[in-house]
Amino acid sequence: MSEASAGRTGVALTERQKISWLRLIRSDNVGPIAFRDLINHFGTAENALDALPELSRRGGTKHSYRVASIAEAERELEASRRHGAIFVGIGEAAYPSALRQIDGAPPLLAMKGDLSAAARPSLGIVGSRNASVSGAKFAAMIARDAGRARYVVTSGLARGIDTAAHRASLDTGTIAALAGGLDKPYPPENIGLLEDITSGRGLAISEMPFGWEPRARDFPRRNRLIAGISLGVAIVEAAHRSGSLITARYAADFGRLVFAVPGSPLDPRCHGTNDLLKQGAIVTTGPEDVIEALAPLSQLELPLPGAREPDGQTGVPANASDSDRAAVSTALGPTPVEIDDIVRHTGLSPTQVYLLLLELDLAGRLHRHPGGLVSVAATE
Amino acid sequence: MSEASAGRTGVALTERQKISWLRLIRSDNVGPIAFRDLINHFGTAENALDALPELSRRGGTKHSYRVASIAEAERELEASRRHGAIFVGIGEAAYPSALRQIDGAPPLLAMKGDLSAAARPSLGIVGSRNASVSGAKFAAMIARDAGRARYVVTSGLARGIDTAAHRASLDTGTIAALAGGLDKPYPPENIGLLEDITSGRGLAISEMPFGWEPRARDFPRRNRLIAGISLGVAIVEAAHRSGSLITARYAADFGRLVFAVPGSPLDPRCHGTNDLLKQGAIVTTGPEDVIEALAPLSQLELPLPGAREPDGQTGVPANASDSDRAAVSTALGPTPVEIDDIVRHTGLSPTQVYLLLLELDLAGRLHRHPGGLVSVAATE
Repeated sequence: MSEASAGRTGVALTERQKISWLRLIRSDNVGPIAFRDLINHFGTAENALDALPELSRRGGTKHSYRVASIAEAERELEASRRHGAIFVGIGEAAYPSALRQIDGAPPLLAMKGDLSAAARPSLGIVGSRNASVSGAKFAAMIARDAGRARYVVTSGLARGIDTAAHRASLDTGTIAALAGGLDKPYPPENIGLLEDITSGRGLAISEMPFGWEPRARDFPRRNRLIAGISLGVAIVEAAHRSGSLITARYAADFGRLVFAVPGSPLDPRCHGTNDLLKQGAIVTTGPEDVIEALAPLSQLELPLPGAREPDGQTGVPANASDSDRAAVSTALGPTPVEIDDIVRHTGLSPTQVYLLLLELDLAGRLHRHPGGLVSVAATE
Repeated sequence: MSEASAGRTGVALTERQKISWLRLIRSDNVGPIAFRDLINHFGTAENALDALPELSRRGGTKHSYRVASIAEAERELEASRRHGAIFVGIGEAAYPSALRQIDGAPPLLAMKGDLSAAARPSLGIVGSRNASVSGAKFAAMIARDAGRARYVVTSGLARGIDTAAHRASLDTGTIAALAGGLDKPYPPENIGLLEDITSGRGLAISEMPFGWEPRARDFPRRNRLIAGISLGVAIVEAAHRSGSLITARYAADFGRLVFAVPGSPLDPRCHGTNDLLKQGAIVTTGPEDVIEALAPLSQLELPLPGAREPDGQTGVPANASDSDRAAVSTALGPTPVEIDDIVRHTGLSPTQVYLLLLELDLAGRLHRHPGGLVSVAATE
């Protein structure tokens, strides 16, 4: 089935394909963008898995490269079944449609709860963990009214604003995006809230493996899911340099609306939100500000993305010589550059350049930046 | 001396001219715009005073028209001297230069205190009378830092934010714009503050007669002075439909900067300021926001306005026939229109139209609106 004829229902992955996808995304140094480029280049996850060790070797890996095994993927699928969760591929109907549009969307998402929540337009609501009483009240007010207006409320299950937003939208639908595996919610005191969410009209999602304990750097990555799944994100209280501002930044990068609630300049919990207002966020003093701005967007039909799987139409793998490899290495430095510029600079074909970048990526030597820019560390 | 050669020092009114100006602005139905048009048409205030009764009769006044007498004007000048104040004409050097630029600037301003304050660039700071502790603190913080940056702080001597702004700028210079006569400050508890202002580096100003007790409708009129005298106005706390928002509206109409301090949407004292932010006011979370935005403006040399007095070069008074009068009356209705449109519509000269509008104005039948629009009441 081609991309154009996939229609609004998407295409389902077979069980065998799902195992290959899971193996591929769980293999060393395969992030969402490398995953996409591998599938685009090799046609199927299975073909890509075969190519991984050689690609990483050519990219100059310094360690032995680990490909996730079939047994490992089967264990994770079994864990998800025990947990009552499923894995949904980016081309499948149950995958959140707004999230599909972002660069670096997870190819597989573990989901638990009412899957229909992911089909509805979402408003993200995030903010301080040490929220003020009025901040929490305001978050609940927006969540309740957004829920009545048929939006699902997405947040991060954190203390404070997140908790208030989830609780106020339990009856209308809420999505908790987790930084660790679905079986490793954080913080512990919100385990009960998560059960309320997944047993009712809500949903929990994660791109991380079952059993994964969330580390500090997993939270910004998770924030990208909240922004990506939502048409707009409301930031209720946020200090300078807080995680909520990372979510706001992602939302802006993805072209989503950013709402910020004004607050006293003398309250540090409002410094971040006031800064967002200075940067052009929508001044939000009530749910109507959010709902009116979202209304035109929630009417849009989002297109399904290109996903060459599952019919396995494969492109012809390009070959690259050592001199091509040297040319791309030379073109790269510690300053992020656009891939198009590397293509122009080296005179190689885009397919060759993507392949050579994949090699570096799998070898753990490439840094990917927002906007599709790439760099290598200065010492290389 | 012509307008072009008046230079930065302005031109001083003679004592005799000052009495005529005072008589003219204190005569029935002579507002600042009628004053300007009368001077433009008749060349001097003395000529205009002679014409007033006949003009108002032609305009269809229903009452006997009162021209302020010489004795009356002399009594007011004497009262100002006793009070230690002076009257300053719009063309004179001591007149606040930013205020000169606005449509409807008072032709005469009573001033008491350190006149040099009016020569410096001004920041207006206004807000709620029932300010919160943090609002008052914030107003004081802006006033203090703006004062250090050489701005004079202009406000309305009201309780709350105004009081905090004046007090914090006593040492660097502050201007209190009064709604009543200079000898009728309001509220009573701020009489001591006003004395501190005028005995130090500050200034009190008023366009109203000595002895005038301020009425409710005089306060919006006074707010126009605060906006007109300032390069920008900071609104610290303001409820919906509050006087501070009138000041903000005047500032926007005059092309001045409008600063608004964000606050909690759950605090009614912040509803007005948050609304201003929605309308594009500058998000203000510290004095630096104000000072940085004002800096380029405070370098501008403001031109002196056209003031045909005091050399008394007079234009040739136009004559208008009854049919011209009828044509202008027909062109006017309850919907405000531009004077240029009346000129085009009637085919009369601009001079004739201005004269016929003056007649209606002096007869109390014309309504003047922002932007120079005019209308008459529906029943006429």
